[in-house]
Amino acid sequence: MHAITISEPGGPENLTWTEVPDPVPGEGEVLVEVVASAVNRADIMQRQGHYDPPPGASAYPGLECSGRIAALGPGVSGWSVGDEVCALLAGGGYAQKVVIPAGQLLPVPEGIDLKQAAALPEVACTVWSNVFMLAHLRPGELLLVHGGSSGIGTMAIQLAKAIGARVAVTAGTKEKLDFCAELGADILINYRDQDFVAEIERATDGKGADVILDNMGAKYLGRNVETLAVNGRLMIIGMQGGTKGELNIGLLLGKRGAVSATSLRARPLSEKAAIVAAVREHVWPLIASGVVRPVVDREVPMTDAAEGHRVVEGSGHIGKVLLVAP
Amino acid sequence: MHAITISEPGGPENLTWTEVPDPVPGEGEVLVEVVASAVNRADIMQRQGHYDPPPGASAYPGLECSGRIAALGPGVSGWSVGDEVCALLAGGGYAQKVVIPAGQLLPVPEGIDLKQAAALPEVACTVWSNVFMLAHLRPGELLLVHGGSSGIGTMAIQLAKAIGARVAVTAGTKEKLDFCAELGADILINYRDQDFVAEIERATDGKGADVILDNMGAKYLGRNVETLAVNGRLMIIGMQGGTKGELNIGLLLGKRGAVSATSLRARPLSEKAAIVAAVREHVWPLIASGVVRPVVDREVPMTDAAEGHRVVEGSGHIGKVLLVAP
Repeated sequence: MHAITISEPGGPENLTWTEVPDPVPGEGEVLVEVVASAVNRADIMQRQGHYDPPPGASAYPGLECSGRIAALGPGVSGWSVGDEVCALLAGGGYAQKVVIPAGQLLPVPEGIDLKQAAALPEVACTVWSNVFMLAHLRPGELLLVHGGSSGIGTMAIQLAKAIGARVAVTAGTKEKLDFCAELGADILINYRDQDFVAEIERATDGKGADVILDNMGAKYLGRNVETLAVNGRLMIIGMQGGTKGELNIGLLLGKRGAVSATSLRARPLSEKAAIVAAVREHVWPLIASGVVRPVVDREVPMTDAAEGHRVVEGSGHIGKVLLVAP
Repeated sequence: MHAITISEPGGPENLTWTEVPDPVPGEGEVLVEVVASAVNRADIMQRQGHYDPPPGASAYPGLECSGRIAALGPGVSGWSVGDEVCALLAGGGYAQKVVIPAGQLLPVPEGIDLKQAAALPEVACTVWSNVFMLAHLRPGELLLVHGGSSGIGTMAIQLAKAIGARVAVTAGTKEKLDFCAELGADILINYRDQDFVAEIERATDGKGADVILDNMGAKYLGRNVETLAVNGRLMIIGMQGGTKGELNIGLLLGKRGAVSATSLRARPLSEKAAIVAAVREHVWPLIASGVVRPVVDREVPMTDAAEGHRVVEGSGHIGKVLLVAP
């Protein structure tokens, strides 16, 4: 088969479509013929040499895919050759075939095109595990989503609205904010010319945000804690603004707040399977009923994954950038 | 009645036994004749002018007491005049009488002396709400308790052992560590000449602590995050080592960890009542059966509350310092 390999750490041009050995499914795994994968920020970090795959994971990038089951390893039940699926991966999605632990497979939701389904696993699992399983966002609470027009952001807005929460978003252009509003976002903040702390304070009579989903890390740490409501939960899932920041413990204590930082990729199989099962139970019906939909910015041929990376690094996109296998 | 008043912010000598008006119980409150109160670090901060009582709370210090119900306000059921009780307070325990929301009352546990019961409410509610209700310490997990010989520490060790967790403690003297060992602590760390990060690493084969109960705040923030296990939860309930510290978000994210900071005093009545009810359900039976016991360093006359503060500020004590009403 062919896969995107990283010739050496560096720019997008180092992503090359290369002939590699076919992977073989082991105990509890399936082999999937990939139809599409999608670009995640973590793939870019991996390409740059800042985020090695966890032990045992594929060396090729790609944290999610959709496709058809081509073979079952020993001990797999509940799935058949030919099933159309999408999946959360620890790597290897940028390829014609990938081996996947059965616990990370999801059926393609009713009404969703097989290719588009590649846009769902990472964002659904990330948002559900953080905002709902860990932070327990409740109806009537306010969720602040930084990067509201990202893949993660567009899923977070839709899921939070679906359970009856209010949603505030930050984004960098009017076009992105308008799109967030179409998805249901209630409070729109352009981070280029507005201070999100002041805007949230104004919109909530000083109460603040109950849950914050943050991809900036250090750069926003102080202001995120400032804008947390009493009993607020800050969930950090990205560090695009740096990895070390000052924590005002006194302020956090006064709010009885919590700061969590998580990622999906390095979790043990059992935790991933639990998250995937929860997503199938709680998120998939919302997608099948049309309440929540995948948001795809564009499709790029997987052979030209470099172009997909350039789009995401340029930050002009809304939603997910798909990589379509040849 | 008489109560300890704070003549002006400053040293222990500013605590004076003064004649003041009797408090009157309102809707849902009871009046309690105080038998004993106990010294908490927050009282010292209040005396120094660094921790004002929350709105509506008594101006006198004292976050817990034991005593007898002297009168019921309107709308109180389930309690009678003459009942021997102890209680979590928002203030006012350093007095002959105090008014208490009924949701914060606890019966004196079977087998416990009425005076000694004053040692229980703050530590039981603080430890239960943080280590169990928020951090969900589970059997087999490791709890690290900083200040293991404090009132909070001695309760945390006993409760964690009672549910089948392992316990590590830090303290500053061999005498204190020996006492922690008697209560069941498994790993003893003298912070004066040992590095707790290295000691926990050694004792857990590098795994780290699943839950940390911390009273130091900024001073320990970096090392606490360093010593957290994967999925670890750092619970900050005191800031004796400062209020602002550097948070290594990258390290926290790699561990999928959480940092929470809480206090009891400013919580709304409903949250306090929920915590008190949980303590009555889960902790009180362990005290009644003798598995968990109050640890009292000494009794000081409430009229000489200054002496009680000097003892706690000197940090030579083990467990709680009681203030006994005349």
